[in-house]
Amino acid sequence: MSNLTYAIIGTGAVGGLYGARLQKAGHEVHFLLHSDFNHVRRHGLKITSVDGSFRLPKVNAYRRAADMPKCDVVVVTLKTTANHLLPSILPKVARPGGVVIILQNGLGAEKTAAGIVPRSVIIGGLTFLCSTKTGPGQIRHIDYGVLTMSLFRRDGKAGGITPLMEEIAEDFRRSGTPTILCEDLVLARWKKLVWNIPFNGLSVVLNASTRELTRNPHTRALARTLMDETVRGAASFGRKIPAAFIEKMMKDTDKMVPYNTSMKLDFLQNKPMEIESIYGEPLRAAARRGVRLPRMEVIYRALSFLTKHRSIKQYDQS
Amino acid sequence: MSNLTYAIIGTGAVGGLYGARLQKAGHEVHFLLHSDFNHVRRHGLKITSVDGSFRLPKVNAYRRAADMPKCDVVVVTLKTTANHLLPSILPKVARPGGVVIILQNGLGAEKTAAGIVPRSVIIGGLTFLCSTKTGPGQIRHIDYGVLTMSLFRRDGKAGGITPLMEEIAEDFRRSGTPTILCEDLVLARWKKLVWNIPFNGLSVVLNASTRELTRNPHTRALARTLMDETVRGAASFGRKIPAAFIEKMMKDTDKMVPYNTSMKLDFLQNKPMEIESIYGEPLRAAARRGVRLPRMEVIYRALSFLTKHRSIKQYDQS
Repeated sequence: MSNLTYAIIGTGAVGGLYGARLQKAGHEVHFLLHSDFNHVRRHGLKITSVDGSFRLPKVNAYRRAADMPKCDVVVVTLKTTANHLLPSILPKVARPGGVVIILQNGLGAEKTAAGIVPRSVIIGGLTFLCSTKTGPGQIRHIDYGVLTMSLFRRDGKAGGITPLMEEIAEDFRRSGTPTILCEDLVLARWKKLVWNIPFNGLSVVLNASTRELTRNPHTRALARTLMDETVRGAASFGRKIPAAFIEKMMKDTDKMVPYNTSMKLDFLQNKPMEIESIYGEPLRAAARRGVRLPRMEVIYRALSFLTKHRSIKQYDQS
Repeated sequence: MSNLTYAIIGTGAVGGLYGARLQKAGHEVHFLLHSDFNHVRRHGLKITSVDGSFRLPKVNAYRRAADMPKCDVVVVTLKTTANHLLPSILPKVARPGGVVIILQNGLGAEKTAAGIVPRSVIIGGLTFLCSTKTGPGQIRHIDYGVLTMSLFRRDGKAGGITPLMEEIAEDFRRSGTPTILCEDLVLARWKKLVWNIPFNGLSVVLNASTRELTRNPHTRALARTLMDETVRGAASFGRKIPAAFIEKMMKDTDKMVPYNTSMKLDFLQNKPMEIESIYGEPLRAAARRGVRLPRMEVIYRALSFLTKHRSIKQYDQS
């Protein structure tokens, strides 16, 4: 076990689970909270997990980043819709020369973080995890859980794997989180978008489950062409995603239980949807490289309209 | 006034209004009805119109095309979603050598009709009309009302204007329906699609009024790009729609009162939507000419999904 100290920025379904495991494994962990602060300071965290349930009666809980100590590794598990808060958080908690892990969906946040804390090493993280916050300080982990980490480079090239990354990955693994290190962050991010771009957006715009979307021939074809456009987006970054990957994504989705995507859950709960990181930023980044993705653009604009004009509640009143 | 006889196939908001006016002007008119047959046979038609209200206590009403006499001019005002009925209707009511007017939305129905009654002259008709059926045999005409007619040619070329068309147009005009003859049916149909393609589909998919769609910057941009794609569809037929036409459509829409499109009304009433004639056929026709229209394809597939999986009622239950 390393003697690295950890900060969890956004103690929800992802950050709460991973952070609690790190503390249980013996690390010093500092948790930033918002609405759950009072409850967690008194009662700590409760993890219910298919991989082992446990309680932490006492954790280092903070309401404000200014009160936190500077940590070696800052794990950002806010939703991207809250990233406007990062300029007031990261400089207070990231130790110069330390690491910031961006554990978020979509594109663009690593670059934002690198601009805010230029002396930090920035790592992008991707989770494949079914986990929800069921109450204040209470997290239920239902399935999966692999964390993938990859070095961010300003020049967009594959960053390789450093000894420090190995050390952090080993901390996560020993704490119970299976962790993979990956050489190419840009490729990893676009591969995740191959699934997120069709299914997150369509599930909201058409008020549908993944099963309905894959079984209807029209939305199945549309999901395929949106995946094709995502592959073209990756290609504009010089990354090749093989056709077999699309086939695998479709087959994996066929096998899923009917599932509400994270964006659909946000929509149903009237929370902000991650439209810019999943659609807006990839569209703009591809356009800067001369590639237009017209079907993705339709979904982006439809979601942007819905976020202003509609909620499930408003549908009910129609 | 000519001595042409008229048949109205589908006595609803459009066919009922135009047919009743022709009969009032002294023509022999035969009306095919479905659910309203019994009521109209007994009580006739009642027209409430901004251009003059009237009653026809007695009309020639039929439940079956087989009972109708063959007529010189057959006006088809069914919705395109009922066009599977045309093979069992047109041969019974269209006089060989006579005229069939297809007064419908979108592309493809003239060709269908030409295949069914090859000895008829086929004319395409377009209406710009705010009219609704408010009860059995009761039609309320609220605004507008211009009818445009244009000759169909199997080779897709502009058909010009014939003396017979002039005669029919004059019958409509004298009966109170402003009528324009137009040389090029293909151009007229695509110009109408420039409005129908963005606003019909988006109003259903996003559950929105035209005003919401034009005022939100995202859907305004999307409507523009869908119009651009429609212009590209027309270009695949060798027809040029000038940029100024798009500007005018946008400005006209800005001036409209908040308006539920015909497709939205169909959706709200759980009636079949004219998805194939407004989207499917234009997409396929452009694809045959080597032109793909990806944004239009998204709307087409989204509507095709919704028609199977969703209704406003189902939204209410979500």
